[in-house]
Formats: sequence, C-alpha cells, structure tokens
Amino acid sequence: MKLLDIYSRKKKDIAFIEKSLERSIDVDLPTLRDASLLYLKAGGKRIRPVFVLLAGEFGHYDLERMKHIAVPLELIHMASLVHDDVIDDAETRRGKATVRSKWDNRIAMYTGDYVYAKALTLVTELKNPAIHQIMSKAMIEMSIGEMEQIRLFFEHGQTLRDYLRRIKRKTALLIAVSCQLGAMTAEASENYAKRLFHFGYYVGMAFQIRDDILDLVGTEKQIGKPPGSDIKQGNITLPVLYALQEPKLRKPMLEELDRIRKADGQTDVSRFLNLVRESGGIEKADEIAETYIQKAIASIDPLPDIQAKKDLVNIAYFIAKRSY
Amino acid sequence: MKLLDIYSRKKKDIAFIEKSLERSIDVDLPTLRDASLLYLKAGGKRIRPVFVLLAGEFGHYDLERMKHIAVPLELIHMASLVHDDVIDDAETRRGKATVRSKWDNRIAMYTGDYVYAKALTLVTELKNPAIHQIMSKAMIEMSIGEMEQIRLFFEHGQTLRDYLRRIKRKTALLIAVSCQLGAMTAEASENYAKRLFHFGYYVGMAFQIRDDILDLVGTEKQIGKPPGSDIKQGNITLPVLYALQEPKLRKPMLEELDRIRKADGQTDVSRFLNLVRESGGIEKADEIAETYIQKAIASIDPLPDIQAKKDLVNIAYFIAKRSY
Repeated sequence: MKLLDIYSRKKKDIAFIEKSLERSIDVDLPTLRDASLLYLKAGGKRIRPVFVLLAGEFGHYDLERMKHIAVPLELIHMASLVHDDVIDDAETRRGKATVRSKWDNRIAMYTGDYVYAKALTLVTELKNPAIHQIMSKAMIEMSIGEMEQIRLFFEHGQTLRDYLRRIKRKTALLIAVSCQLGAMTAEASENYAKRLFHFGYYVGMAFQIRDDILDLVGTEKQIGKPPGSDIKQGNITLPVLYALQEPKLRKPMLEELDRIRKADGQTDVSRFLNLVRESGGIEKADEIAETYIQKAIASIDPLPDIQAKKDLVNIAYFIAKRSY
Repeated sequence: MKLLDIYSRKKKDIAFIEKSLERSIDVDLPTLRDASLLYLKAGGKRIRPVFVLLAGEFGHYDLERMKHIAVPLELIHMASLVHDDVIDDAETRRGKATVRSKWDNRIAMYTGDYVYAKALTLVTELKNPAIHQIMSKAMIEMSIGEMEQIRLFFEHGQTLRDYLRRIKRKTALLIAVSCQLGAMTAEASENYAKRLFHFGYYVGMAFQIRDDILDLVGTEKQIGKPPGSDIKQGNITLPVLYALQEPKLRKPMLEELDRIRKADGQTDVSRFLNLVRESGGIEKADEIAETYIQKAIASIDPLPDIQAKKDLVNIAYFIAKRSY
C-alpha cells in the first residue's frame, strides 16, 4: 500500500491544510516569504498534519479547529529543518536547494525563528493553554535533542540508550504530540489522547530509525540527498552502533570514523557504508523499528474500530517498510 | 540619577526575578546550561523585567504572578541576543565572550532555540491565551526586524522610516510588550495597559537610538564592545543616515562605506566614525531620542501618581542620557 492511497480518504482536508500552511507564511518580506515557501513547497510527507487529522476523528472532528493545530505542528517541523540545515551545512534537502545554500546562514536562522514564532502565534487561536504548554515543551525537548546530537558527534562510545533518547527528542516526541493534540483539539477522551500519544511516539521512533537506515542504504534519488550524510557530520545511528559491536569490524570502523572526523566529513565514505552494510547492523536496526511499529499498533488496539484507526495502522506499516 | 537608585525600591523583587531566571534554565545538559548562564550572568540592565514589575503596580501586584511574565520576556531578549551573536560574528558582548565564540555557531543557535521555547513554556503557567498571543506576535516581529536589518546592510539608500520601522521591531516592541503584559498580568485596566504599551514603545525607540549613538561615540569600556561594530557589519543607524544627508560628507562617507563593505568589516573604521561625529548627525539623533522620551512620559501622564510612575519617568530620563 502506498502512502497516497492511505491519504486519499482525507485528500480534501489535507489540501485545505496545505492551503492554510501557505497562507500562514504569507509575509510581506520577499526573502522571508521565499525562504519559507521553499521548504513548504519541497513537500515532505505531511505526517504530522495527517496524524492530527486522523487523531481528531476519535473526537468531534471540526476541520477549522484541527487546522489551528495541524498547521503549527507542521511549521514547527519545518522550522526545525531550516535550523538543522544551518547546522548540517546541507546543500540540498529533498533534492532541492536549502535556504542556507540559496541565501545564507543568517537568513536561514531568522527564517527558522520566524516560522517557530508563527507556529506559536497560530496555536493561540485555540485559546487552550494546555495545548500551548504541550507544544512549547516539545520544542524545548527538540532543541535539547539537537544539542545532544552535536555533543555526541563522532562519539563511538555512546550507548543504544543515548541514541534512542536522542531520536525520541529529535523526532518521536513531535509526532507523538501531533497525535495527542489532534485528539485534544477534537476533545476526545483523555485516555484516547494518551493512547494516541503513545502510538505517535512509537511510530516516530520507527520513522527515525528507518530514516537513519535509508541514509546508509538508500540511493540519492530515493532519499533526496547523498547517502552517508549522517556519518559525514558525525551522527552515529543505530545500525552503526550495532556494527561497532562486531569484534571484527570494530577496528576498521573506528579507523574510518577517525579519518572522516579529521576530514571534517569532506571525504568519500563508501568504505564506511560498506562496513555497516556487511555488519548485519541494518537488519538489527530494522528489527527494532519493526518492534516499535508493533508497539504502536498495540497502543491503539483498544480504540474504536473506525476508519481512522485502520489508516493509522496502515501508515505505521508503511513507515516500517518505506524506502523514501 | 543612576539606574541603581531607581531600582533600589524594587531591589528585593528584582533579586527574586533574577533567581527565577537562573532556575528557569537549570537544564541537565552542561553545554546548554553553561551557554545560557553565560548570557544570564553577563547581566544587562534587566529593563524588561523592571518594566514588567513597575507596570504591574498599576494593577493588583502579585510578585509570583509577575514572575511568570518577567522571566519569559527577559529570556526572549536573551535568546535574541544569542542568535544575534551568531549573525554578527560577535566575539564579545558586554565585555564577555559570546556563546558563539566560546563554543560555536551550532551551539549558539540551539541555545537560542532552547531559551525561546523555555520562555514560551513558562508563560503558559499564566493560562492566559491573550498574553501568549501578544508575546508570540512580538517574536514574529522581532525576527522580521532582524531579517530587515540584514536586507538593509550597507544599503545607503534606506530612509529614516526604514530605520525607525526596523528598530521598532528589533527593540521597541518587546519593551512595549513588557509594559503592556506587566499591566495585563496584574489585571490593570485596558486603558492603563495601552498607555503603558505606548510608554514602552517610545522608551524602546529612544533606547535603541541611544544604543546606536553609543556604538559611534562610546569607548570599548563603556559599551563592552569595540565602537563601530554596527558599521562593520553594515548596520546603518540614525546618526549615519543624518550624516549622509550632508552634501559635503556624502561622497567621502559612501567611499568609506564601500571600502568597509568590501573588507567585510575587517578594517579600521575610525575615519568613518570621525565623519559621522563631525556631521551633526549624533546631535540630531539625540534630539529624536529626546522627543521619544517626551512622548513616553506624556503617554503615562494621565496614570495615577504612584511611585511606580515616578520610577518609569526616571528610567525614561536615564535612558535618554545613558552612556552605557
């Protein structure tokens, strides 16, 4: 099953959110508008708005209200991408030039700041302080996650736990919060919101693990950037951590890591990628992602059997298998 | 009159806010904590929290509640300084090393993001969506102001109006909002909050004009950074705009501007500073600042004659004359 098939039932509502997203950053300043639109138009899976909408179906679904949470959550995600690109020195994202490469770091930083602030302003339309609080706390955790990532660049002594905590903050939490706030905005029961939060958290963990696998095994066409980008900046992901546990591979891998670090990532990493691919680490990481997907599905098992639940399950399966 | 004398009546309350500020960024991550504390400990005038407290006296003053708005507003100011330093390539601020120079741009960017998010989370304690909205809208304007500043770097064709709109967004608005939200948090009347907003706006305009003057005429000891920092990055301020209007000075100034721009600011700017100092532009800018101060004082003239009003007036006078 393709993502578009799952989305088709909500096509009209997603198109409405898309329009609202565009309108939300319709600012007078040309550079700022162009920079923000660049990211918006680059697309992406819109996982967060879709989760908001589907979670909303477990309560009183009102698209106008759902918009006030779907748009800000996607904007927060977008803003974090803009700032990540400043950090990553990324020249392309999803196959398109990044704000940083098209303009410069300064524009990218303030574009991110603007989009964050815009997201927070939009959510105040809901006049629900509990929602603001959950959203801004997620932003705190996201920035801590990014700092942790920097701290652990090239740190081969880090544990699986370090990795999991980092991707929880970086990715899983905002997806969890998308599900939770979708439910809360629709005034679904607290128990439903909690279960949907857990669903999003587990799916988000699987999503990031899958992302990290794709960076090691995907083609540039599939992932919209050259493979090996993670290790070039020193980001040690789950398959790499597993590969490092292989006694025979550890030494050559550490040598490669050291070489890449010293070259500041400006070097060929194909040998490193091959070592990881041969290690069995990819398969182990895939299993962990699969376990998270199972946990996600189990979390919402007690929820009513409406179509939204089937869609969530299908998206979860899609994420575990996706190759883009 | 010195700022400390004006503050002395509120000394205990300011100390309480100071403690709360420190506690607010007490995060587990050492880099993040150290980076945030670096800015906090560097001090600053704490103009925003002081205005919050004084504005609060026009309503039902409750320090515990005032804290929930004084701390976030100072944090937003701090976060904007951290991000400005990324942009400015600033090595020192208030005579201390900046986060960017002590760590690097990445740490500075995420420290700023963290502090912004923290500010927004803290303000949700007040459970007043109108307050969140005003705060996040101010953040939007601030980021637009910063982008405008970049767009107009070295742009000698800019108008006085461009300059005034920029400093409104960059500085005056957050000070205006500090006064307004201080009043709102204390449930002062809408009319009082509005008048205090205008007071803050006018004081903020004068504050920034004075800041821009000091960068041209101050000593490194007074301003905590080398004079001429503004023009080195291309920031054309009010006295410079006035100086450019002098027919005799325009040509040599444009030549100097071009030279500084081509040298990317890595050059001696004393000739440029001398041209501005001789132009009468400083005096004209000072007059504008003085006019703003008069407007600020007039804005709160109809307010009850409590001590807080006298303090606000004294701070306004101080700002117009300050040399640090």
